[in-house]
Amino acid sequence: MSLTKEQISSWFRELQLHICNELEAEDGLAKFEEDTWNRPGGGGGHTRVIQHGNVFEKGGVNFSAVHGNLTENITKALGVNSSEFYATGVSIVIHPINPFVPIIHMNVRYFELSDGTYWFGGGIDLTPHYVQKEDAKHFHSCLKQACDGFNDHAYPDYKKWADDYFFIKHRKETRGIGGVFFDRLKESDEQSKFEIWNFVQRVGETFAPTYRKLVADNKQKAYEAGNLQWRNLRRGRYVEFNLVYDKGTKFGLETDGRIESILMSLPENASWYYNFQPESNSLEAETLSLLKKGVDWV
Amino acid sequence: MSLTKEQISSWFRELQLHICNELEAEDGLAKFEEDTWNRPGGGGGHTRVIQHGNVFEKGGVNFSAVHGNLTENITKALGVNSSEFYATGVSIVIHPINPFVPIIHMNVRYFELSDGTYWFGGGIDLTPHYVQKEDAKHFHSCLKQACDGFNDHAYPDYKKWADDYFFIKHRKETRGIGGVFFDRLKESDEQSKFEIWNFVQRVGETFAPTYRKLVADNKQKAYEAGNLQWRNLRRGRYVEFNLVYDKGTKFGLETDGRIESILMSLPENASWYYNFQPESNSLEAETLSLLKKGVDWV
Repeated sequence: MSLTKEQISSWFRELQLHICNELEAEDGLAKFEEDTWNRPGGGGGHTRVIQHGNVFEKGGVNFSAVHGNLTENITKALGVNSSEFYATGVSIVIHPINPFVPIIHMNVRYFELSDGTYWFGGGIDLTPHYVQKEDAKHFHSCLKQACDGFNDHAYPDYKKWADDYFFIKHRKETRGIGGVFFDRLKESDEQSKFEIWNFVQRVGETFAPTYRKLVADNKQKAYEAGNLQWRNLRRGRYVEFNLVYDKGTKFGLETDGRIESILMSLPENASWYYNFQPESNSLEAETLSLLKKGVDWV
Repeated sequence: MSLTKEQISSWFRELQLHICNELEAEDGLAKFEEDTWNRPGGGGGHTRVIQHGNVFEKGGVNFSAVHGNLTENITKALGVNSSEFYATGVSIVIHPINPFVPIIHMNVRYFELSDGTYWFGGGIDLTPHYVQKEDAKHFHSCLKQACDGFNDHAYPDYKKWADDYFFIKHRKETRGIGGVFFDRLKESDEQSKFEIWNFVQRVGETFAPTYRKLVADNKQKAYEAGNLQWRNLRRGRYVEFNLVYDKGTKFGLETDGRIESILMSLPENASWYYNFQPESNSLEAETLSLLKKGVDWV
């Protein structure tokens, strides 16, 4: 049975709506608003944004299915020869209010060229303002479970990929506690297209229950002004990563994508304090000491 | 009489201290604090930061004089052959509290290679949260005056350079109302090294009186929560420009510069509101309509 790009795309759209329902249930107040947009070169998307809820300050869940001609720059950047592409996916960034609830990011995507070449990519990663080891263990265990059904080296490989990708080089710190990241997955001796698709679906499906537990466990925690300052400083680091390093963001800005959908990943507010150093033995200092590659969270 | 790099550098250090005194006088409360740092490869600098004043929320006035070996990447990027460099300059970014006081940026710099090649660069540009035409006229008139003593095409040429440089491509808007920007100035049939140096000094000297008038005229203005929201949104645009496009910032991040000195240009806080559209005929809408290239402010 063949798997068409239309089937993949409509599953992604369903996933978007499902995740929005789950997040609304967890928030209890705010509802997603949807903007539908068309891409001048072909296709379009539905951008869904939740704002000023009980739990979520600003969050975006974006679905797109775009197609058209590749410019020469892009074929060169991708190392491909085809001139027509189809790209569909869901991407999510959620910025909660409570500093003890982590920021989360997910992306699942499928890319196909007119010559039949295709690949899947995606991942989920977590950016706690305060790293809490129990939460980190839960998060990575859920991802490991999603990966282990695919093959036994997926979790260690894709965890390492996330550690390397979500790294703020100029700060010499990771953006958060990583997660999994994968790209250019295509059929091989080891795996069929259908098996990859099943894996990508499993990653998409694990998002809502995994994150809802983290939100539910932390959303009632008390916090003070100092915690909000630290939250905003960590959000500043998030902005630095996304504007300086994130490939999706850079690709979007350079190819004249829909700016509001690309930059919905940025928080409602972020801070930069000159030369901020957390007090020794503080929660903030502990978090900083854990923002490094190669930690075994499970 | 020859002009040495040491003479240029010590004049820049004096300029830094002079400007800090002037800004402290205008603020009336906060004082600059100075961090002195050494560059592992050679040289160092003095970073001076003012915070939480009556007028200035966060501002940095940085002096540096660094030297060392150029990496292959950098000689390629600069299109030069020499392996040793000397670079000195002053760079400033000031973020005021009152939304009607503009953000300002200045940079004056001198670069010299071991083979004797050298150039000057720099400029001043203004980023009002609210564009006020009288202020814009004052600002550009002061810059024009500094340029006209150099030669008669300097102001139009360097104004255009600033319009083109301080442009947020993905937003299709200028960062602010521009100013002047120049780079790679060296002696020619038209101008001696000494004449260029005099011009660069004049640009440096015009900073304090030009900006003090803009601050003094606006710092008492009343403002509301909506004005602060808009200020923070404009600060978000400032962050976008600096992290995505600014060559100095990118160069610093890529060459492992002192991060806190490079990113002192970022505001204490900045905001991103999804798909924000100002009300028609509002002050915010008027400002947006003026954030474009080629406006004759004088």
